[in-house]
This record gives sequence, structure tokens and C-alpha cells, in this order.
Amino acid sequence: MREIRISTERRTQLVEITELVADVLDSSNGSSAALVYVPHTTAGVTINERIDPKLVEDFESALEKIVEDGWRWQHVDADGENAPSHVRASLMSPQVLVPLEDGRLALGTYQGIFFCEFDGPRERKVYVTALS
Amino acid sequence: MREIRISTERRTQLVEITELVADVLDSSNGSSAALVYVPHTTAGVTINERIDPKLVEDFESALEKIVEDGWRWQHVDADGENAPSHVRASLMSPQVLVPLEDGRLALGTYQGIFFCEFDGPRERKVYVTALS
Amino acid sequence: MREIRISTERRTQLVEITELVADVLDSSNGSSAALVYVPHTTAGVTINERIDPKLVEDFESALEKIVEDGWRWQHVDADGENAPSHVRASLMSPQVLVPLEDGRLALGTYQGIFFCEFDGPRERKVYVTALS
Repeated sequence: MREIRISTERRTQLVEITELVADVLDSSNGSSAALVYVPHTTAGVTINERIDPKLVEDFESALEKIVEDGWRWQHVDADGENAPSHVRASLMSPQVLVPLEDGRLALGTYQGIFFCEFDGPRERKVYVTALS
Repeated sequence: MREIRISTERRTQLVEITELVADVLDSSNGSSAALVYVPHTTAGVTINERIDPKLVEDFESALEKIVEDGWRWQHVDADGENAPSHVRASLMSPQVLVPLEDGRLALGTYQGIFFCEFDGPRERKVYVTALS
Repeated sequence: MREIRISTERRTQLVEITELVADVLDSSNGSSAALVYVPHTTAGVTINERIDPKLVEDFESALEKIVEDGWRWQHVDADGENAPSHVRASLMSPQVLVPLEDGRLALGTYQGIFFCEFDGPRERKVYVTALS
């Protein structure tokens, strides 16, 4: 298991981590898939288009519309009333699993792997594990 | 593949199963990840914070707001008009995959694995498979 | 890694691919799980009930309600203003991972694997990888 560290800058922010994941996989030839896992409860990971920055903004605002800050929430912790952040994280999911071909991520032409911050800014970790 | 059995008590209910998963993994040293799979169509699984019971309630009511019972639905089966339960299950997803370190779940500090019931109460199964 | 090809016929369409996945797994005895991966950014994959065609229609319209075409979107590409299609794809997720028993998909009684088209009609690919 390898670890990536990233810093987020805004409350809701998708950060592309495709190259960071590819870098820690350098010697995984022989493996069949790469597990990208987020060990946080107000952040997740997804795969989507890595071309248009406007689409990333669309994603961020869509997640805030699917799960509304204005709903009645009970949860308050040291980080404030961040229940919607937790739900958004689970909607995106805590992990993605990408097949490998000759040790390289078999992503589609337009696909990138995105860390999904929902309670930033924060320092975050991502675990990468090669599976056989 | 190992099997866990749980009983749910309410229509929409998140049940923490972290310890149950960890228990059936006891002898999986050498494996790289644990697949937790739900073989049902009105239940799923997610990973989120296991500290605050109020957050669990927030999750349950949020899923009922994201997918509304009051929308126009066509599906009716032996269990009634439970189409929204099916959609909620897919939003949470049928499986999670957690990396293992020395045979133990490499969960984040606050993370727990939650079975997500959306058409309870019922008797349910969860499959746990260690991957190399 | 094996590849499946499918053609979709409508903008939003769930297509059952369980048999197609099972077919390319024929010789995977000894493997522990099957990774079904979608290399597109406006399509995903999920697992749900394969019995009632009305439930499939309910799923399709629910995804169009959870993420509304009428929200303010910025992204426009060669395929038009398809930002909601991208978000729907991520909600369903780019992959599912199904445990194998004696080389066969350990799906629940009513479960099927569904390719989720959100920007059709198109020609699409799905990757299937057996993991040990």
C-alpha cells in the first residue's frame, strides 16, 4: 500500500490525482487492478472527464444541489455542521478500482481520477494498492 | 468467500458491520484488500463516520430526500412499491473494497463500514472476500 | 482484461450485461472477483434487480430527477451540454466488483449487472478483469 498526500483549498473541490496515482504504481507490473482508497469521511473519489475545468465546477455545484446544506441536519462535530459533506462523500464513494494493462491504468481516453473534497480546506491522504 | 448475516429493524437503516467484517478476515494475512459485497437489490454498503449516531440518522433521512417516495414510480413487487429503495441501494453501491495492512482493514481513524438497509426490516446477508 | 461492446439506443438507458460478463469469465476458475469497468465519462455501471422492466424505467427517470437537466450548467463539448450525464455516471460509479464462487459470479438471486448509458445512443465498451 502506497500513500499520496494532497492539500485542498476550498470546501467542495475535485482535484485530479491521475498522475499521482500512476507515479506510485510504477513498479506494479504483473498486477491486474489499482485500488485508490480515501481514508476520510468527508471526502471521496470518482472517475470522470479530465479535459474541461468547467465540468469540474459543474460537478462541485451539482453535489451541493443533490445534497442541500439547507436540509434539517443534526450532526455537529469539531469541524462544524458538516453532515452534508459526509453524505456527498458516500455518494461519490470511498474508492475506485481501475484495471491495469502492462502495469498501467487502463483509463478511457477522457478519464481522470478525481479526489473529491467536501469539507476543505484540509490536508488529505489517499491509499493506492495494486491487486493481483 | 465468507458470509455475514444481519437483521434490520427499520425501513431505512444504516447498520455498522465493521467488527463483523474484521472477524471473518482473521486469517487473511497476505491479502491486499477486502471486498464487502451485498447480494440484495434494496440494500447497499458504504463507508462513513462511525462516531456520532446522529450522523447515521442524518444519512438515513438524506437518502430519503435525494430519492423521494413521492415521485411517480411504476415498479410494484411482492414487497410493495419499493422502487425508491432500489435506487437508494445503487446510490450507496453494492460493494466496498478496503485495503488490508498485515491482514487488517486499513480504515481511516473515523471510518466504519455500514450496511445500508432501504427496505427493512429483513434478514440480510453480506459476502466478504479477501483479494490478493 | 477482456472487452465487451454494446450499442445503446436512448439518451438515458440501463442495459443488462450480466450474461455478457459471465461469458467472458468462462475460464476464470481460481479467481476471487470480477471487476466490471466502464472507460467512459457519461456512462457507468450498477447492480440491481433484473426482473421487472418497469423498475429499469423507474431507475432511468430517477437519475434524471436526482440530477436535473434544468440546473445551471457550464460544460459544453462536442457532444453538447451534457454535464448532467457526467454527474449521473459518477453517481452510479465507473465500476462494480463481484465476488466469484468456482469461477461464477456470486450475484444475489434477483441481481443483474447493468450498463448505465447517460448520453446515448452510442457505441460503448466495458472491460472485465478477473482478480485473484
